[in-house]
Amino acid sequence: MPDDSFHVFDTTLRDGAQREGVALTVADKLAIARLLDAFGVGFVEGGWPGANPKDTEFFRRASQELDLEHARLTAFGATRRPGAHTADDPQVAALRDSGAPVVTLVAKSDVRHVERALRTTPEENLAMIADTVAHLRAEGRRVFVDLEHFFDGYLYDPSYALEAVRAAAGAGADVAVLCDTNGGMLPAGVGRVVAEALEATGARLGMHAQDDTGCAVANTLAAVDAGATHVQCTANGYGERVGNADLFSVVAALELKHGRKVLPEGCLAEASRVSTAVAELVNIAPATHQPYVGVSAFAHKAGLHASAIKVDPDLYQHTDPALVGNDMRMLVSDMAGRASIELKAEELGVDLGGDRAPAARAVERIKELETRGYSFEAADASLELLLREELGEAPELFTAESWRVITERRADGVAVSEATVKLHVKGERMIATAEGNGPVNALDRALRQAVEGVYPELGALRLVDYKVRILEGGGTGAVTRILVTFGDGHSEWTTVGVGENVIDASWTALEQAVRYGLMHQGHNE
Amino acid sequence: MPDDSFHVFDTTLRDGAQREGVALTVADKLAIARLLDAFGVGFVEGGWPGANPKDTEFFRRASQELDLEHARLTAFGATRRPGAHTADDPQVAALRDSGAPVVTLVAKSDVRHVERALRTTPEENLAMIADTVAHLRAEGRRVFVDLEHFFDGYLYDPSYALEAVRAAAGAGADVAVLCDTNGGMLPAGVGRVVAEALEATGARLGMHAQDDTGCAVANTLAAVDAGATHVQCTANGYGERVGNADLFSVVAALELKHGRKVLPEGCLAEASRVSTAVAELVNIAPATHQPYVGVSAFAHKAGLHASAIKVDPDLYQHTDPALVGNDMRMLVSDMAGRASIELKAEELGVDLGGDRAPAARAVERIKELETRGYSFEAADASLELLLREELGEAPELFTAESWRVITERRADGVAVSEATVKLHVKGERMIATAEGNGPVNALDRALRQAVEGVYPELGALRLVDYKVRILEGGGTGAVTRILVTFGDGHSEWTTVGVGENVIDASWTALEQAVRYGLMHQGHNE
Repeated sequence: MPDDSFHVFDTTLRDGAQREGVALTVADKLAIARLLDAFGVGFVEGGWPGANPKDTEFFRRASQELDLEHARLTAFGATRRPGAHTADDPQVAALRDSGAPVVTLVAKSDVRHVERALRTTPEENLAMIADTVAHLRAEGRRVFVDLEHFFDGYLYDPSYALEAVRAAAGAGADVAVLCDTNGGMLPAGVGRVVAEALEATGARLGMHAQDDTGCAVANTLAAVDAGATHVQCTANGYGERVGNADLFSVVAALELKHGRKVLPEGCLAEASRVSTAVAELVNIAPATHQPYVGVSAFAHKAGLHASAIKVDPDLYQHTDPALVGNDMRMLVSDMAGRASIELKAEELGVDLGGDRAPAARAVERIKELETRGYSFEAADASLELLLREELGEAPELFTAESWRVITERRADGVAVSEATVKLHVKGERMIATAEGNGPVNALDRALRQAVEGVYPELGALRLVDYKVRILEGGGTGAVTRILVTFGDGHSEWTTVGVGENVIDASWTALEQAVRYGLMHQGHNE
Repeated sequence: MPDDSFHVFDTTLRDGAQREGVALTVADKLAIARLLDAFGVGFVEGGWPGANPKDTEFFRRASQELDLEHARLTAFGATRRPGAHTADDPQVAALRDSGAPVVTLVAKSDVRHVERALRTTPEENLAMIADTVAHLRAEGRRVFVDLEHFFDGYLYDPSYALEAVRAAAGAGADVAVLCDTNGGMLPAGVGRVVAEALEATGARLGMHAQDDTGCAVANTLAAVDAGATHVQCTANGYGERVGNADLFSVVAALELKHGRKVLPEGCLAEASRVSTAVAELVNIAPATHQPYVGVSAFAHKAGLHASAIKVDPDLYQHTDPALVGNDMRMLVSDMAGRASIELKAEELGVDLGGDRAPAARAVERIKELETRGYSFEAADASLELLLREELGEAPELFTAESWRVITERRADGVAVSEATVKLHVKGERMIATAEGNGPVNALDRALRQAVEGVYPELGALRLVDYKVRILEGGGTGAVTRILVTFGDGHSEWTTVGVGENVIDASWTALEQAVRYGLMHQGHNE
């Protein structure tokens, strides 16, 4: 693990959540924190305790549930209010109470913002910084200070902006983070300002770049070139307005282009997986053209160069895609080849045996399903079922004859769903009807009711997540992809269903999830 | 119009068309060329005549149909083949025959590519460059030379890469364009290499950046800082793999940040319109988070700063959005106060009048709805309806008594949905039943059928997008948020519905979208 001399600081859960349309649950935030930790970042900024109940709850649950290997959990908050005593400030109290060992304080460093937005004096603002840092240091916290609007402030009044750096560092903050809050900087300017601030203050400096000029990654790298040793990024560049510096691009450039080890050994190769998984949790389609980690990042329109690429791939790619967990793709051919299915089977614990035919048939089926909108990346359970079917190892367990679900909003304004399923289980025809608070919930209940008599283990399985993605921007006529996650208290598994009809696609995923769960409870025939 | 001292060169129609999934017709290409001309670029590279029939046809039609005001049409092609006579090379003939006054020749400058991909000698490659440039100059064409893999080549063997620059310039090429073909460069390296190449050769240099490190815009600007006076970009950064340098970001940075006039007067303000129109023609959803031109580029999550933004917008945006034809938008988030609602109302064209009570009531309702999972950030139409309701201005139009939707997968495996709605429209009770390929589609059809008799304008409205978000990670028992987007061919509007039951939430959004559409068709009571 890298020492403290360079910080990869992630703020997906705080600044990333500012992206338009993003609304994360506490469970989402915990899952993303685990992913970022697996990627090896040094700090995970979890949110602003005290500012909203969800972030307070996140820190409460994080202290009990999160067991981070590489990252330290960081709480974000403001300096004390003008004229207040730091110890009495409820906002500062919420930071203390969060239990986070590291606190990032946001502070003003542009004198115009001090006077017009904060409406206090330049002197009081500096005292607010120093007092709050000193207070939290005395409470045993490590403190970083985000200097909002630093670059605009420095260009307007450099001496005041530098005073803010000195106030933070002088009171014991480890890092003064220079923020391009409005995102208007270009790399040449960032490099110059960071170098001057370092020269003038000698403080440890960090960089927080917004992407409004499309230069957030380059600005972050320019700051590092100029001597910054702490970079703030978000997964996939999520953030307010255009977004923030993308964590994966910044880290990949530092490791692969600058030759600077900033992640623990082996973590960079997790980049593509973590990027996609975070996108799924945030419920934003993964950016296909994202540098390093996008599915198109190493995709070559073959034609002219195909044979040359085959002989000498290094002539046609700027880095080895395996280093970031990605693959070179030739667009004429298909993604899934037999080799990758064989690897995947091994990972899933499915023994393909000596015969090559089942893997070849699986590849054909996967290709066909993918053209219809299926994606098995996030649905290992569906993939395992498909492989076992080709091997003749998938147990039948039950077959569905038909089902029906009625949803209505009655004249009294109450909405209800009622489902009926007709199944064959071990030779018997079962019919069951159940109500639910939605159509999929009703189907889930009716399915359990029909099957549970024969398979009582089903009682221990529960549906833990349900995700919907519309695949084509064509309104309700578009194709829908459903991901269903079930759990049994020990492990979780995800299945996928695709179709024009959202309920039909949900049924497909639901049925597979139950089938997979029962199979792993020992029902193998 | 800027003189020839700086070139904004667009290659959307050639390199941009390499983007995965893009397939442009000749008509698309003609329409995009007109848009790029309206944006004021100096050169539009139309394609590779002779390499494929579509590009040959494009140049044929362009010479007859395109009447460009600012741009010169440019044809792309390769240098003559090894060992061939330039005048006899059919590829060079196709360039001559294209009728384009400017030709961009692609040539090799990395000695490894010369030997391994081109399979000729370093000397012959230089002769191919010089011969082909001289031939086309003698034919009266202006010639630029794209030096493929220049940066990789320079880092491997600088003297050979510089010989390629000299071969091009010495034979009469106006510009030697240094290409980062594999896209692996970072700005500091680009600046250094361009400065050294300029110093060594004195040739006029251009920059062609690919975005594989997420630095294409910054790399282009670094080249300009180092003395390049010709930049090659594509609209929205479309291009192979990750893409190219985004035309709009590069030009906006040069004009707004460098203070360098590179477009004809008035053209920069066309950026947002041209960006969106090109995206529509290419059939890629406009990138909401694109710098300068995306709909989120100047969107602020209001809350804390709304009152400050109102007083002093320049403190919170890096440039005036009107300069690039964009607008500031206030997002209504769960920290919304009256100030942000007042700003939002102004933006929506809702007159709150002198009375503060409606805005205060709206804030209360919004807060209450947000605790239930509503989010108005992406649902301006729902927000406008809510504001008008508080003002007593929302027309009733119709009221729903009840509805019901049945979805079934029959024993033959086919899934169908059928909806029945019961409504009161202008005192009359209407009942309608319709089928659909999913439950929401069926409800949409039944609703239209019930209402269309009274409001025939409904026929012009169509559902263009439907989004589902599960709000709490609690499986099918969780709360669902639905966003529905309708359009009438001129504009689009989005509404939101929330509920435990996905169909019920969809109905809420659907009903509001229809109500909003009819209201804006003039049904105000």
